[in-house]
Amino acid sequence: MKQYTIGIDYGTLSGRALLLDAVTGETVATSTLEYPHAVMDRTLPDGTPLEPRSAYQHPNDYLDVLRVTIPDVLAQAHATPAEVVGLGIDFTCCTLLPIREDGKPLCFETQYQSEPHAYVKLWKHHGAQEQADRMTEIAKERGEGWLARYGGRLSSEWAFPKIYETLLKAPNVYDDAFRFIEAGDWLSLLLTGRETHAACFAGLKFCWDDCAGFPSNDYLTAVDPRLSGLIGTKVCDKINTVDEIAGKLTARGAELTGLCEGTALALPGPDASNAMPALGVTAPGTMLSIIGTSGVLLVHDYEARGVQGICGYANRSVVPNLCTYEAGQAGVGDSFDWFVKNCVPAHYTKDAEAQGMNIHKYLRQKASKLRVGESGLLALDWLNGNRSVLQDASLSGLIVGLHLGTRPEEIYRALIESTAFGMRRCMEAFIDGGIRIDAIRATGGIAKKDELLMQIYADVCGREIAVMDTDQGGALGSAIYAAVAAGLYPSVAEAADALCEKKSIVYKPIPENQAAYDKLYAEYNKLYDYFGTTNPVMKKI
Amino acid sequence: MKQYTIGIDYGTLSGRALLLDAVTGETVATSTLEYPHAVMDRTLPDGTPLEPRSAYQHPNDYLDVLRVTIPDVLAQAHATPAEVVGLGIDFTCCTLLPIREDGKPLCFETQYQSEPHAYVKLWKHHGAQEQADRMTEIAKERGEGWLARYGGRLSSEWAFPKIYETLLKAPNVYDDAFRFIEAGDWLSLLLTGRETHAACFAGLKFCWDDCAGFPSNDYLTAVDPRLSGLIGTKVCDKINTVDEIAGKLTARGAELTGLCEGTALALPGPDASNAMPALGVTAPGTMLSIIGTSGVLLVHDYEARGVQGICGYANRSVVPNLCTYEAGQAGVGDSFDWFVKNCVPAHYTKDAEAQGMNIHKYLRQKASKLRVGESGLLALDWLNGNRSVLQDASLSGLIVGLHLGTRPEEIYRALIESTAFGMRRCMEAFIDGGIRIDAIRATGGIAKKDELLMQIYADVCGREIAVMDTDQGGALGSAIYAAVAAGLYPSVAEAADALCEKKSIVYKPIPENQAAYDKLYAEYNKLYDYFGTTNPVMKKI
Repeated sequence: MKQYTIGIDYGTLSGRALLLDAVTGETVATSTLEYPHAVMDRTLPDGTPLEPRSAYQHPNDYLDVLRVTIPDVLAQAHATPAEVVGLGIDFTCCTLLPIREDGKPLCFETQYQSEPHAYVKLWKHHGAQEQADRMTEIAKERGEGWLARYGGRLSSEWAFPKIYETLLKAPNVYDDAFRFIEAGDWLSLLLTGRETHAACFAGLKFCWDDCAGFPSNDYLTAVDPRLSGLIGTKVCDKINTVDEIAGKLTARGAELTGLCEGTALALPGPDASNAMPALGVTAPGTMLSIIGTSGVLLVHDYEARGVQGICGYANRSVVPNLCTYEAGQAGVGDSFDWFVKNCVPAHYTKDAEAQGMNIHKYLRQKASKLRVGESGLLALDWLNGNRSVLQDASLSGLIVGLHLGTRPEEIYRALIESTAFGMRRCMEAFIDGGIRIDAIRATGGIAKKDELLMQIYADVCGREIAVMDTDQGGALGSAIYAAVAAGLYPSVAEAADALCEKKSIVYKPIPENQAAYDKLYAEYNKLYDYFGTTNPVMKKI
Repeated sequence: MKQYTIGIDYGTLSGRALLLDAVTGETVATSTLEYPHAVMDRTLPDGTPLEPRSAYQHPNDYLDVLRVTIPDVLAQAHATPAEVVGLGIDFTCCTLLPIREDGKPLCFETQYQSEPHAYVKLWKHHGAQEQADRMTEIAKERGEGWLARYGGRLSSEWAFPKIYETLLKAPNVYDDAFRFIEAGDWLSLLLTGRETHAACFAGLKFCWDDCAGFPSNDYLTAVDPRLSGLIGTKVCDKINTVDEIAGKLTARGAELTGLCEGTALALPGPDASNAMPALGVTAPGTMLSIIGTSGVLLVHDYEARGVQGICGYANRSVVPNLCTYEAGQAGVGDSFDWFVKNCVPAHYTKDAEAQGMNIHKYLRQKASKLRVGESGLLALDWLNGNRSVLQDASLSGLIVGLHLGTRPEEIYRALIESTAFGMRRCMEAFIDGGIRIDAIRATGGIAKKDELLMQIYADVCGREIAVMDTDQGGALGSAIYAAVAAGLYPSVAEAADALCEKKSIVYKPIPENQAAYDKLYAEYNKLYDYFGTTNPVMKKI
């Protein structure tokens, strides 16, 4: 009998199941479901209008993914539920919903159908900026030690600002919520009957640390007395590290998935972290670069400590006994998308269409003919703020060197280069913090399709970069965790060795480009420090 | 019998004649001829290819303007040559050609038909950058006092670099040239048989000053021994100030123009200076702002002295006994043109077309709905370098504040605002130099058609700005000078009082916008000083 596992990757717009032969490592089938409600940023399903900067989801969509994609991969592979020995899940985070004690989302109740705060707040919901600012302010005043771990600032995307926003704008939802729970942990609860609070979610989004725990009740009370007692009541205070499994499917879990009762469920994790074993990154020394809409850099180390400029770390959350550090660039692919939507002239669009070419590809083709430094342009990659190393969402993008002969492909290339410089700056923050980086592996939508960008990244960083030959790191990693949960392998590292993606395309730095970029990077750093620190113009205008 | 004068405005692409009733001030007729050879920047008429950055013209085109437009305005007005008592000319400068002693351009000779340097070098010919750099270098080494009057740097657009380029690249043309002469002065010579070297051309483009004279022969010899003796031989050293007339039309002049022998010809001048009397700017206290492809600011004062950051001054060149100061912005309208050609997306272009609207107008309409500061953008208006107050062509444009929601009309408006800030900075340099500015008048292609821009300029400068109701300041001013030359008025000031354009649209600052722009201008100045002085990144990348 075959031994399969299934990994399910819950992204921003869809969920995807991957059926893995947990012995051979073969990916046997995949299946994707676009969420029926997608991202609700203008109205709720009943037409209730939403505030600007809102991003909600409907939890029923997540259940639809289970109902549709699992039977689909089984059917494709002619496999039976009994052949599936483990299930794993990764989820965007902080993607948070209020639930009743039995796990029922408040938004499933008729009384809350028109109440936005009863729905899932997606990771990129930005309605809690004021709450994040206030919570940062009070943490600074009180000298809260955990604040340094997060670069000195709470993001509006994290759990406590989102919960506080609910308290202020929908107090009855706050009162009625038994828990505010990550969507990934909510699925654990539904499927196994046991609530999890995965260390990775808690560490990255709830300001939790395995030594210091959560922020104190005194702090929360200082923010608002009504938040007193939050930890341990509306926020689960029992944390699960990656050496645990979530549990076994109950009858209800079996019904929701079409799998057998008793099937092992791995602890859920964020998509980026779960991709690490899928790409063989289970030991210190290798940095994983995920290049998509935004940029994420992940690297393991033996020791947990604060590293200046880094978004955060989570101990024992990806690989047992290792600490995983994360840095990030808030805008990568979405900056390129902004550019093509807003700044590419009609004659380029027309010419690209005439050649039957995607506009990104068309611009890349033109940009690839430019020599390093030829355009005289330099940009700061902060069009979506700066996540690392300045952790300041109020910073903005900059282009210098424009002249009357500047062409669109030159700006496009300068934007690509700026994200490469941004990645190098993050990498150097890791190294300055004592974290070893001997090798770089890359994945993500852009890494696989943009050769120009990858060559620039290799040239700018002065490092070989191996782009791994998979576009489903999250789902594959979740299936690998499922194989460990099912007991097929004694450890994540051994499971990854056996099952991870091994094929890659390696980009090597071109020495003359590397030298030219070193000079540009020095100028980039000067502007970085000037606009990030010396001159607060970006916050004032 | 009527008393008419004719003013001819020689622009970059065409020449325009204006027939003025020199008693009533009525503009009776106008006529324009596009130059048959336009700007030669790729090939000569015989197909000889040109170097990049070349911009040549054919002097025969200037004669065609006389032959065609003067009879045309006379015919339109049913006027006779005898009724035309004076002729005036304004010309782009430094627009320079090599001629024989009899006034014949070298390019009219068969042997020089394929030699670019035998033709007219148009003001915007940029082939002499290396020569300009070397001449600047040597002037600095020698501590030449005149260099300070031109902001410490010779422009490649000026006379000596252009002549030196000819010496190096076409030594036989240099040897055969009896004179290198401004096209405006060349027309004086042809029409009156008397050579002029107008003070305005000499002061602005030949580094001449009415106290110090020309740069010394020692200096020119230090640049290249072959330049020794240039002044007084190949460059006319007899300077004519504005209280003189050029002369009277000879028989040949009458033949070239169709006017009567003996008709008075006013001293030629640059288009911008000649526009001053046309707009009634003949006394200190009023600054003239000419807003077109580039920006020019002109203001009179009683005293001639160096003013930091100002392009230059010419004494007794526009109004007798007054000194005229000039500052400039190298890129205004051409920056907006660059933007619409390179940075406006197809859906905007399409939408504008569907509404039958020019894309500039379409963008203005959208931009006019934005509140001051709403976009969070700030730009430096240096896409064509900085002419005043830094006089540094190697500076470049900058945009800060970009984010994923930034829209094209926001960038367009930020570019407009940057040129307003640039103008304010020039105006403050005048004021800091002790030059009074009580009022501002504006003219130029953009001033008349762009209400949004004019309101922004008034708001940023905190001054009323009167946009004069004429689009032919140069031609009208030349006709006014012609009326003085003909003896109809005792002075330029009195002629201007009687004949100048008096209608205007006045833009008044809106107090809340002015206050908001004051804050943005403070930030603009910080960036101006940082990128102009502190951080040389624009020169290094």
